Amino acid sequence: MTTPPPEIGLGFLGMGIVGCGTVETLLANRAEIEARIGRPFVIRRVAVAHPSKPRPVDLDPGIYTADGAAVVRDPHVDIVVEVIGGVEPARTYIASALEHGKQVVSANKELIAKAGAELLQMAAARKLDFAFEGSVAGGIPIILPLKVSLAANSIERVTGIVNGTTNYILTRMLSESAAFEDVLAQAQRLGYAEADPSNDVDGADAAYKLAILASIAFSTRVRMEDVYYEGIRSVTADDVTHARELGYVIKLLAIAKRSGERLELRVHPGLIPADHPLASVNEVFNAVMVKGSSVGEVMFYGQGAGGLPTGSAVASDIIDVARNLCCEATGRLHDSPFHDRAIVPMAEIRSQFYMRLLTLDRPGVIASIATILGDHEVSIASVMQKASHGGVAEIVWVTHPAPEGRFRAALKLISDLPTVHEIGSVLRVEP
Amino acid sequence: MTTPPPEIGLGFLGMGIVGCGTVETLLANRAEIEARIGRPFVIRRVAVAHPSKPRPVDLDPGIYTADGAAVVRDPHVDIVVEVIGGVEPARTYIASALEHGKQVVSANKELIAKAGAELLQMAAARKLDFAFEGSVAGGIPIILPLKVSLAANSIERVTGIVNGTTNYILTRMLSESAAFEDVLAQAQRLGYAEADPSNDVDGADAAYKLAILASIAFSTRVRMEDVYYEGIRSVTADDVTHARELGYVIKLLAIAKRSGERLELRVHPGLIPADHPLASVNEVFNAVMVKGSSVGEVMFYGQGAGGLPTGSAVASDIIDVARNLCCEATGRLHDSPFHDRAIVPMAEIRSQFYMRLLTLDRPGVIASIATILGDHEVSIASVMQKASHGGVAEIVWVTHPAPEGRFRAALKLISDLPTVHEIGSVLRVEP
Repeated sequence: MTTPPPEIGLGFLGMGIVGCGTVETLLANRAEIEARIGRPFVIRRVAVAHPSKPRPVDLDPGIYTADGAAVVRDPHVDIVVEVIGGVEPARTYIASALEHGKQVVSANKELIAKAGAELLQMAAARKLDFAFEGSVAGGIPIILPLKVSLAANSIERVTGIVNGTTNYILTRMLSESAAFEDVLAQAQRLGYAEADPSNDVDGADAAYKLAILASIAFSTRVRMEDVYYEGIRSVTADDVTHARELGYVIKLLAIAKRSGERLELRVHPGLIPADHPLASVNEVFNAVMVKGSSVGEVMFYGQGAGGLPTGSAVASDIIDVARNLCCEATGRLHDSPFHDRAIVPMAEIRSQFYMRLLTLDRPGVIASIATILGDHEVSIASVMQKASHGGVAEIVWVTHPAPEGRFRAALKLISDLPTVHEIGSVLRVEP
Repeated sequence: MTTPPPEIGLGFLGMGIVGCGTVETLLANRAEIEARIGRPFVIRRVAVAHPSKPRPVDLDPGIYTADGAAVVRDPHVDIVVEVIGGVEPARTYIASALEHGKQVVSANKELIAKAGAELLQMAAARKLDFAFEGSVAGGIPIILPLKVSLAANSIERVTGIVNGTTNYILTRMLSESAAFEDVLAQAQRLGYAEADPSNDVDGADAAYKLAILASIAFSTRVRMEDVYYEGIRSVTADDVTHARELGYVIKLLAIAKRSGERLELRVHPGLIPADHPLASVNEVFNAVMVKGSSVGEVMFYGQGAGGLPTGSAVASDIIDVARNLCCEATGRLHDSPFHDRAIVPMAEIRSQFYMRLLTLDRPGVIASIATILGDHEVSIASVMQKASHGGVAEIVWVTHPAPEGRFRAALKLISDLPTVHEIGSVLRVEP
């Protein structure tokens, strides 16, 4: 038989949690999905490390293979669905798939953030689709709305809570007045945090997602090294409590913001006002707020992780790509990074700062710290002595907005004061 | 000159608030928009009732005409943008535009809800685009996310706050403990309500939007007569206060829900728990929650009205249609109402009910009402006597879930009791 079959052929690379969620979604709603595409689909090949391992999806055991290369060159595979995760071997397989003229759907945030530029360019040059809605915020529609529904706007800012693990931890630290380590252990027991949680709690995962969102929102090419990130390990139960008293909630924020022709790109814990729409995004939920020149503020909210929610995004991408295949319009929504945008160095970014200091409980300490801040033109919004134990005072400062460089220079001198035992925490306050 | 010009030609029908917001958006971001499309665009013709009236957009006065027919048959117009509103003459012009092979973008909720079926079918038969993101919830992306980003899901429920006027009124009735009429007058002064507000406050506007959302979410053809709707005129400041005491907020809800193979379709004020994500959607903001089989609950939030936010949706639709023109893929996302779904009669829908009664303040009154409810198998969740003035008691009842038909039958008998002066309000409670 030389004529291609009428079905849309799918080939999977990987069949873990997201892969299984995708297949479960495709099979459960097959009739509706095929009506939407206008053609039937068939899952032809699945490449996995251990083909004979049992999996919770209803697929013919004969389609499993250990050979990813066989999937990407199979002439009956039209769309390659990459759900392995990590940069290699995903990058090599996808490049090969594009060389073989396959459309690609991926949910791999690390790959898109680190190697997306090169692969998206390959796809565009070949008029192939490369869709990756599942790479950011699980099932929440955000990539396509940014590319299409908000395309007429000049985007001013994207602010997201895009990591479920850290949001769960911060939510529980607040509701249970618990320490980071205790809630992390709890999250690991519940499967919300990995055995090695560093990718989540140190901010890298959110930084991958921010790089992807910012590249699209600002029609540019954000490289991972452009994104400043820090995690939540230094946030204490006391910080969470003090923030609440001040009328704030602490969240791990991913912020991309246009500043003239340059971009601010940063992931860090931040204090946001308790009545901010993101402040009520709790537990493992994610949300992304976008501010556009015409639309104003819009927010997208939902489950940011999990096999079925992410599978919803991957399977919906498959439908969209299949529709393009049916009308020979693949590559229609190609990547077009037409702006080259410089990045604002962190030292130049103006923020309010929250600073918790442990000092000697003695007259003159606050005066000496305030003098240093004043010398650096950092003005003080509030100072509160929270507690004193054994001659050590805990003092919480909130500054007015100041460039980070000036604040850090002051902080260096403050930490050198003999009366200052420890810089407990330093957090940014976002309006 | 016989070859078509390389520009995408736009023709506008109407140039009111939304038209001006669209043009302002297109002109402000022309360079980025043309980079996204890959071709320049030009606004060729604008049909308005009064061509010489001054308008706050920077368009060549020579392109205005009073003749809509001239716009829809202009050979240099590729996309007809209909922002007149109302069914006629919009329907006739759009039908003619489609007959002339034009792509159509519309923000006209009443037209899409009442005459969309016929026009969308015409467009699909001719492989033409007909986009209408601006018809629901202003600039909030919801039509495209439903059609594409959530396409792999079987949608279970859509619940929206889709009318800004009523949401403003209900928000202010709560925050100011004010009466409906007073807040309505305030909203009219601020331009949030029209001189004749009935289309908004009586629920028709929200019903149009629900018909559009439900048609897409459930791949069916919802007719306006399928949508039950009631407005907020009967909601009193007392109801708002009592609801708050019970832990609820009153919102005008638009609900479409799958019930087996049938659909519930209804717009009415409802009590929702104060911690529900929709409860904090205040003032003129809109939000739509969608529950999908794989994605779970997702929410879309933003400004649901206004020239620029709605213009964002219309201009983004224009970009998307222009992209399809460039790759000859118009009609790719055609309307496909493949399900014929029966509508659940209101009498069969199970809800909890909130009921405020004015009765004689006399022993036995509560017992006689409770007996009637019990006889109809409507069980009581709570009863509170709120106040008594001049021998008249105000009693607030909340029932457990019961079919509306049984509750209404009981209500009829209750209203006939000689001890009952008045059925103050009856509202549904949504979980």
